[in-house]
Amino acid sequence: MSANIPETEKKRVVIIGGGFAGLQLAKSLDSRLFQIVLVDKVNYHQFQPLLYQVTSSGLEPSAIAFPFRKNFQNKKDFYFRLASVTRIATDEKVLETSIGAIKYDYLVIATGTDTNYFGMQNVRAAALPMKSVSEALALRNRILENLEHAVTATDPEERQALLNIVIVGGGATGVEVAGALSEMKRYIFNKDYPDLDTSKARIILIEGSDKLLRNMSEEASSKAFLFLKQMGVEINLQTVVVDYKDYKVVLKNGDTIPTKTLIWVSGVTGKPLPGIHEVCYGRGGRILVDAYNRVNGYQSVFAIGDISLQTEELYPVGHPQVAQVAIQQGKLLAKNLINGLNDQPLTPFHYLDKGSMATVGRNRAIVDLHQFRFQGLFAWMVWMIVHLLSILGVKNKIQIVINWFWSYVTYDQSLRLIIRPDDKTREKKDQKDDQNR
Amino acid sequence: MSANIPETEKKRVVIIGGGFAGLQLAKSLDSRLFQIVLVDKVNYHQFQPLLYQVTSSGLEPSAIAFPFRKNFQNKKDFYFRLASVTRIATDEKVLETSIGAIKYDYLVIATGTDTNYFGMQNVRAAALPMKSVSEALALRNRILENLEHAVTATDPEERQALLNIVIVGGGATGVEVAGALSEMKRYIFNKDYPDLDTSKARIILIEGSDKLLRNMSEEASSKAFLFLKQMGVEINLQTVVVDYKDYKVVLKNGDTIPTKTLIWVSGVTGKPLPGIHEVCYGRGGRILVDAYNRVNGYQSVFAIGDISLQTEELYPVGHPQVAQVAIQQGKLLAKNLINGLNDQPLTPFHYLDKGSMATVGRNRAIVDLHQFRFQGLFAWMVWMIVHLLSILGVKNKIQIVINWFWSYVTYDQSLRLIIRPDDKTREKKDQKDDQNR
Repeated sequence: MSANIPETEKKRVVIIGGGFAGLQLAKSLDSRLFQIVLVDKVNYHQFQPLLYQVTSSGLEPSAIAFPFRKNFQNKKDFYFRLASVTRIATDEKVLETSIGAIKYDYLVIATGTDTNYFGMQNVRAAALPMKSVSEALALRNRILENLEHAVTATDPEERQALLNIVIVGGGATGVEVAGALSEMKRYIFNKDYPDLDTSKARIILIEGSDKLLRNMSEEASSKAFLFLKQMGVEINLQTVVVDYKDYKVVLKNGDTIPTKTLIWVSGVTGKPLPGIHEVCYGRGGRILVDAYNRVNGYQSVFAIGDISLQTEELYPVGHPQVAQVAIQQGKLLAKNLINGLNDQPLTPFHYLDKGSMATVGRNRAIVDLHQFRFQGLFAWMVWMIVHLLSILGVKNKIQIVINWFWSYVTYDQSLRLIIRPDDKTREKKDQKDDQNR
Repeated sequence: MSANIPETEKKRVVIIGGGFAGLQLAKSLDSRLFQIVLVDKVNYHQFQPLLYQVTSSGLEPSAIAFPFRKNFQNKKDFYFRLASVTRIATDEKVLETSIGAIKYDYLVIATGTDTNYFGMQNVRAAALPMKSVSEALALRNRILENLEHAVTATDPEERQALLNIVIVGGGATGVEVAGALSEMKRYIFNKDYPDLDTSKARIILIEGSDKLLRNMSEEASSKAFLFLKQMGVEINLQTVVVDYKDYKVVLKNGDTIPTKTLIWVSGVTGKPLPGIHEVCYGRGGRILVDAYNRVNGYQSVFAIGDISLQTEELYPVGHPQVAQVAIQQGKLLAKNLINGLNDQPLTPFHYLDKGSMATVGRNRAIVDLHQFRFQGLFAWMVWMIVHLLSILGVKNKIQIVINWFWSYVTYDQSLRLIIRPDDKTREKKDQKDDQNR
């Protein structure tokens, strides 16, 4: 086995990770000038802003995932490789991966971040993160299975633990998933589970700081709080989780909340890449880069997107870890790599903040723009349009429009399926069914 | 834990399995007269006729799966239970399950059949069946992963084994999946894998008898053969698989075919249910029933659908294991249970064969009706309409129409995603990424 990438006279750019940053870079790079290699652990781009709708059975994974190979069908001298990275040998300019070594002229780290459990091993072992399609799908399965178990649980305490959904983290993802699940509870649970007292189901949102949507305006924060309250979400601000034991979330003040569905969207951290010197890592495990996204101390290694830590006047502690920064860095790096090739001066990165938004539920979203802040129905429509325009693929757009329209009209998310691919795990199978009768 | 089904004065009908037979029975039974309990291992009905399109990335699992709870939202005194059956205690009229015991007045076995590996353990361990959504999804993942591996395989023999897809079984499923994969090869492989000589990919269909679609007309068989040949499928009739070793299918004549994708749709067998006396099982592991689908020797136990073996004048060795029989038996049993309650005479089952059909590819299907047999474009349109009308749920219908239309116009199946729910398997995870930085 080898990565099997043809030799070329062009400079080779190897990109690790096809999130917003890596994908944009690969798209923007001119493959007449560079050979482009994209390495990812999965074979599709994930549109993370809508992950929470996979969790709440509103969208199929396929609606927010797009195969890399399809996306780059018309790009010459582009190579996708399904692989995980084991080490970067910066001296030899080689990326070591699960499918062999890949030489590079320029290496771009666009690996994003991982869920941060803040060192709590019990939480880590039990909590369900929501950073990928696979994780969102596992969470969907868990929520549905726990409801099934609640139907047949005889112990009232256990039943309550199965009916409580605890979401830790009051950022956009936490707010959005809390809203979506509260709507699921309101419109679906009682219809699907007539034999269960679903009014006892609780959606509990826990946030360490004193407000929701900390990165947005005061107005946005208080409106999100109000919307979620109206929708029946129990919100606990200034509340810190310190452990998870016996199916109970343990809070700093000693209180406990029983739950078998602990959703963890409380923070992220960069995952260290073996081979990158440890002095290159800054706050939150992010990789320190200069104004051109070059990793400190390396000539040919770059980092873009959430994993990079870049400061500028307006952002003295670094940019927010959002899609817009990733996309803009991807675009600029493509330009700068071309400029570098032609000995043209490079352009330093400046983040253009186009605003931010979050959705809480039906007709309820929150939009912060520079001049304007608005919430409610109009914000919700803006939110929908922006997300539809951003997602890859015409068919995905159509699929999402239909799903949204359908859910809106019927008050129903129809994807309440507990599906797992039946990978061959022969041990488990009953041998008796294999007889030639 | 207990199955937790409320006591009632009505007679309780417990149905094991929500395939075509069980679902139809549950729908047709009047819940003012009976309490109905449906037990299944998954929480959704699967529309098996379109499984092959999940395999070939043409349809999402959700398009052909429909949650039981949603389906029966408006049915009073109906209880769905997600459970697997461990034993039937016929003397006490109790069904023992993974969630506890369920008493019944009438028990209906509608468990369908399992894949039959004819006692070949190596085949069993390696081959991929296609009886459920989960299996079809695993197969989709396998096909896509093997293509990725083929890109980076350095050993030509290994690469060829990755590029060969061997389908064993020339019934409707085998013919349909062979056709779908050959179209995927023709329209997708070369576009998605410019760095792979996909002309070397082979779709090989193996059938033990002397024709394809053995249960259909001669005309249908020969047309299916012709269509598949034209589409580049290699068809081996009168060819029997005896083993699978070193990634090679071993044939009875000693020949071998290297492959890492062995699709097994060659036969089915009933899975014995502990508690049902062994004399009750007939050919193919099916449960012998009388004209009213009552299991031989039991008063209150019935079997319907593929698992049942019932003979009548026109079908001296039993009915074909197809959806139509299952649906008709489900309907009639509902009627007969009601008649039994009212001491009315029961109606014996007679299968009304409405015809059968299979699709091979774009514009190419095969329809056998009583008076008419036709193949090609018109058959293909009939096939589409019949399947669309049969599938549950308006939204599923819409989703499928859009997918079909899209694929037809673009020659593209867009769901080429290798997705697995990320169930917590902590051992595998790198501990290093869990630090509070």
